[in-house]
Amino acid sequence: MAAVCELFAMSSRYPATVQMSLDELARRGGRTADHRDGWGIAYFEGSDVRLLREAEAASDSALVRFIQDHPPASELVVSHIRKATQGDRRLANCQPFSRELGGRVHVFAHNGNLDRPRLEAAAPLGDHRPVGDTDSEYAFCALLERLRPLWLGGAGAPPLAERLAALAAFAALLRPLGPANFLYADGDALFVHGHRRTQPDGAIRPPGLHVLARACARPGATLRTEGLAVHGGERAHQEVVLVASIPLTDEVGWNALAEGELIAVQGGRVATRIVPEP
Amino acid sequence: MAAVCELFAMSSRYPATVQMSLDELARRGGRTADHRDGWGIAYFEGSDVRLLREAEAASDSALVRFIQDHPPASELVVSHIRKATQGDRRLANCQPFSRELGGRVHVFAHNGNLDRPRLEAAAPLGDHRPVGDTDSEYAFCALLERLRPLWLGGAGAPPLAERLAALAAFAALLRPLGPANFLYADGDALFVHGHRRTQPDGAIRPPGLHVLARACARPGATLRTEGLAVHGGERAHQEVVLVASIPLTDEVGWNALAEGELIAVQGGRVATRIVPEP
Repeated sequence: MAAVCELFAMSSRYPATVQMSLDELARRGGRTADHRDGWGIAYFEGSDVRLLREAEAASDSALVRFIQDHPPASELVVSHIRKATQGDRRLANCQPFSRELGGRVHVFAHNGNLDRPRLEAAAPLGDHRPVGDTDSEYAFCALLERLRPLWLGGAGAPPLAERLAALAAFAALLRPLGPANFLYADGDALFVHGHRRTQPDGAIRPPGLHVLARACARPGATLRTEGLAVHGGERAHQEVVLVASIPLTDEVGWNALAEGELIAVQGGRVATRIVPEP
Repeated sequence: MAAVCELFAMSSRYPATVQMSLDELARRGGRTADHRDGWGIAYFEGSDVRLLREAEAASDSALVRFIQDHPPASELVVSHIRKATQGDRRLANCQPFSRELGGRVHVFAHNGNLDRPRLEAAAPLGDHRPVGDTDSEYAFCALLERLRPLWLGGAGAPPLAERLAALAAFAALLRPLGPANFLYADGDALFVHGHRRTQPDGAIRPPGLHVLARACARPGATLRTEGLAVHGGERAHQEVVLVASIPLTDEVGWNALAEGELIAVQGGRVATRIVPEP
């Protein structure tokens, strides 16, 4: 199996544009024949999200070419390339998924394949129901049910520690059910959970996600790597965190997440991390 | 005040493309200086929705030009051009709004200006909360709270008559609070409520919405009017219903909705209508 980037995210201190990753998405979305079932990108704008998805290969998409020419500026971007494991090739099965909770749009993207019957038994749904039929969307709806008391309890975002604890418990519930690499963003923070994925030798093992953090003191800087350009904008002291299934370049700085490691990213910085007991 | 089309919808029996209405949106969105605050188009794809919105004038938008060149095929389209009356110029205040309920994406667009304190007193929210700060999104969240028991009670779409009754009660609640023209779609049906709007002479009175129904026996037919082309696709016996704030042409067939009239449209046909007692 070729190395394929299924999940990608960017968090920054000030709005940035992610340009070449879309090329990368298109290239990797089409070159490998087993990831042609859809793509999606969520660009946060405050508490709302501009979400673009299609149930076709990114390499064939006129909309992907449009975004490459007109990349929206955002402080938080979550993206997914789909290889269908559960669910037909249709819009409702394309990630990232989005839902409103507590007056904010929440976004979720998952890479892996979860045991659906055990997932349904372990994680009951509340009022949020899947629109499509993937394990990933079911997991998102179940996650929102667990987060619901936090978000509907008071005004504003709940304390980060409370959200992180809820996500750690949810990730621990998913891990026995199958590969559970996921990106989840609530507009305030991006949560990244690394698990296991199919490696180039065909074995399913960690790492499932990689993280790169960069700071740029001068304005107008571009964080440029092979197949990716993040334009930091015209403000000084920009900071950027990138997350991807595989390191997008050979350069030093990409850190593999440990099996079950969960990190929270805010404003272009890794705010906190949890590594489960061995 | 110039005649401006704030609301537009299309329902068809088979997937159709709405092409020139986007030109119309762009033209009318920019030519009149008082409707430059945003635009949005929702294209249903089964139980899901492809939603495009921007907090800028449609006439300035590269994305509007892209859609004109690549119109998605859909059986249900809901669109809105925004003149800010409540809420800043930002994405979260651009319509149509969307939420998941009962495993389907629901879409809402409203034209008018509702008395917010009286709206909040008359229509309490449940778990759905506004992301932006418009009266229109608040009304949508309150509507979903009223529809919630219907959609979460069983499998599949509730009977049309039950949904229509819930919408009629909701529309009656809105009308005393200000102009309440709205489009609401649950993927199965499009509901259209006509009320009052600012007419060319400046007076606020009915009609607030107009409807045109057309059937095309032969395949490949195009329903073409000034500033609008609906391509019916290659299936015979296509049927199309168009809804717009103002008749988009001078041709015969555009019917004004009476004050408070509510219609339900399914598959390109007006299925049922309710006209309130005088």
